[in-house]
Amino acid sequence: MPDSHTTNLSRDAVLRERAARVIPGGLWGHLNAAKLPAGYPQYYSRAEGCRLWDVDGREVVDFMSSWGPIVLGHHDPVVEEAARRQAQLGDCMNGPAPVLVELAERLVASIPHAEWCLLAKNGTDATTACVTIARAATRRRKVLVARGSYHGAVPWCSPSTAGVTAEDRAHLVFYDYNDVASVRAAAEAAKCDLAGILVTAFRHDMSRTLDLPDPAFARALRAICDETGAALILDDVRAGFRLHLGGSWETVGVRPDLAAYSKAIANGHPLAAVTGAEWLRRAATEVFTTGSFWCGAVPMAAALATLEELQRIDGPARMRAMGQRLRDGFAAGAERHGLRIIQSGPPQMPLLQFAGDADFRLGEAFCAAALAAGAYFHPRHNMFLNCAHDAAAVDRGLEAAEEGFAAVARLSG
Amino acid sequence: MPDSHTTNLSRDAVLRERAARVIPGGLWGHLNAAKLPAGYPQYYSRAEGCRLWDVDGREVVDFMSSWGPIVLGHHDPVVEEAARRQAQLGDCMNGPAPVLVELAERLVASIPHAEWCLLAKNGTDATTACVTIARAATRRRKVLVARGSYHGAVPWCSPSTAGVTAEDRAHLVFYDYNDVASVRAAAEAAKCDLAGILVTAFRHDMSRTLDLPDPAFARALRAICDETGAALILDDVRAGFRLHLGGSWETVGVRPDLAAYSKAIANGHPLAAVTGAEWLRRAATEVFTTGSFWCGAVPMAAALATLEELQRIDGPARMRAMGQRLRDGFAAGAERHGLRIIQSGPPQMPLLQFAGDADFRLGEAFCAAALAAGAYFHPRHNMFLNCAHDAAAVDRGLEAAEEGFAAVARLSG
Repeated sequence: MPDSHTTNLSRDAVLRERAARVIPGGLWGHLNAAKLPAGYPQYYSRAEGCRLWDVDGREVVDFMSSWGPIVLGHHDPVVEEAARRQAQLGDCMNGPAPVLVELAERLVASIPHAEWCLLAKNGTDATTACVTIARAATRRRKVLVARGSYHGAVPWCSPSTAGVTAEDRAHLVFYDYNDVASVRAAAEAAKCDLAGILVTAFRHDMSRTLDLPDPAFARALRAICDETGAALILDDVRAGFRLHLGGSWETVGVRPDLAAYSKAIANGHPLAAVTGAEWLRRAATEVFTTGSFWCGAVPMAAALATLEELQRIDGPARMRAMGQRLRDGFAAGAERHGLRIIQSGPPQMPLLQFAGDADFRLGEAFCAAALAAGAYFHPRHNMFLNCAHDAAAVDRGLEAAEEGFAAVARLSG
Repeated sequence: MPDSHTTNLSRDAVLRERAARVIPGGLWGHLNAAKLPAGYPQYYSRAEGCRLWDVDGREVVDFMSSWGPIVLGHHDPVVEEAARRQAQLGDCMNGPAPVLVELAERLVASIPHAEWCLLAKNGTDATTACVTIARAATRRRKVLVARGSYHGAVPWCSPSTAGVTAEDRAHLVFYDYNDVASVRAAAEAAKCDLAGILVTAFRHDMSRTLDLPDPAFARALRAICDETGAALILDDVRAGFRLHLGGSWETVGVRPDLAAYSKAIANGHPLAAVTGAEWLRRAATEVFTTGSFWCGAVPMAAALATLEELQRIDGPARMRAMGQRLRDGFAAGAERHGLRIIQSGPPQMPLLQFAGDADFRLGEAFCAAALAAGAYFHPRHNMFLNCAHDAAAVDRGLEAAEEGFAAVARLSG
């Protein structure tokens, strides 16, 4: 192997080479750029609003928002001022700061189904707590889960089965998203051992066209839970606070018994939350859920500021409008190039696919060309608008997308 | 219930009253002050060095260090400057910042068994990843765990069984800490399905006298793993970086195959880590482990600064010396009052118990009186020194302890 110091490797390549020695696979998890088209950077030096700079100084308009956490934009001044002020007082102490109570009161006041909340650090903490609380409250074991849905990265729900035992998933029963008959069949299979039904806010499985929840499907889940005494658990980790500040299923008029949030809750500061209905409060007390940093006050102050700011500016509506502008621009660009595209998902969390592109060859060519022209899109995973995307930023993204469409047209032509 | 606004409740009591409505049990987890003697505050307004101020303005010298995370002291200027500098650039982005590579290289360089590392947010993330990686690498299922050891707060290891199914713990086999025969028996019970042995750095079970690891016990675990091809997993979440910067079992000369760290790694910023031996690298790549904030650069910058600073000042030696000063002072104080005490644990993480005090009545009286006199001790859980404890701070703690011993003497007299 040539010594990187004597070659013309990019800074990104040098860092990847060093990381390959000390981190398995170069990087854990969903942010590993090895899964992205060639040319995507792995390391970043700076972020501001909806813009990112990689370690080689290339600037992009970013449409992934760190895969969800960034909802107001990087370095939002209101959030950072709140975080800074709390940090000057104290963060990780022998107990929480008063901001915990303010945040908990705000979550309970603004999320209609919520009578109480718990805080945590990871989305997986929140989904795991929901499942455990549902089991503790019902003294039953079976949990219905949609085939292919992502609920976290621990053995009971990980997309990888490496190191997972059969027992880790012994009490999951699977159904198909938006398919009421399959849910009824799964509930019947669970018999009188049905503890809960777990469902994502919409179907956002990687590498699939996104599906919004059919309101009849959502109502059927609610009805089955009401009939059986099971808990309806909304996994709102990915979508929460982008679609609706009261929880994403306010958009279909169905209220869960438990909901899991993380990602957007504190504009990038590490925090997760569980909200629950009154009948689950006692079980939430019995389940032991904790972590060394879960009373950290800075992410709570950031969350409180994030939620207030999202409400003040009507963040979901703003992201919806800018997402629609992006979507309209994609449609116009595809049409100019004679390309058939599939656009799916809520406008705040859109996915662009090319018709007949089962292997994502076209999607990857689009993304690689757009990246080179200054916009960061994703070919397989829903993207994320944030409130720092204004019309000018979306339009810069669309200019870069034009290079993407041209590249796809050349490949398809 | 009287309206709190018209009564003379303390600020702490008002916050607890509000929290009781929106948080099950008032607070989740280990920082719930309901488990502490009367008089202990729940809410904190400020922290500095080794001092805490509760929301009613009472100042204490703190000997819990947030239950471990605070290792250099609150607002350590070196750590906070590193965190601030990284925050100005970017924290939670589409990928990591270069500081990830620097931190990973440092962990691998300073921890002798480590050939690679992963980062996460919670100690539980790290212990869960270790167990899963051991299973993936060995394609076996059984994990040996010491009876009563705490390894986290999810169903496979939680101290509560609410919401836990039998299957969550189907592949755990129990042994007794420091009891080699019990480990051999557990390993034999696991037969050829032994994936790993999980062990804490020392026995630090809540409400028990602490036990340091018998070096012969540690060597026996290493030998059993070597004989069977299982992974020796050191849960160094609680003790890591307080006893030794190369991992706590450097003190007994035994190197694990996998180790889990969190708490002290970044002086209160949320971070956890797994380190592993070469033979486990491929399995660590196959196991999918991730979280929305796991590439956040600010806690990594804080960790790098924390580890450098701990090395520069020889933090473990400093905490050991101050812990010994505290212990000597406790011994002298108890003797002055004619009290028989039991002191256990490494000096950096001491526990003080009173002889014959099975129900902790004396320990709680000691703590309550010491708290009123300005020192925060814990009656049942190991305490934590940090590097902001200087001789003056320890001596202030001992002055307060004098009130505690006097209270115990009155009770025992």
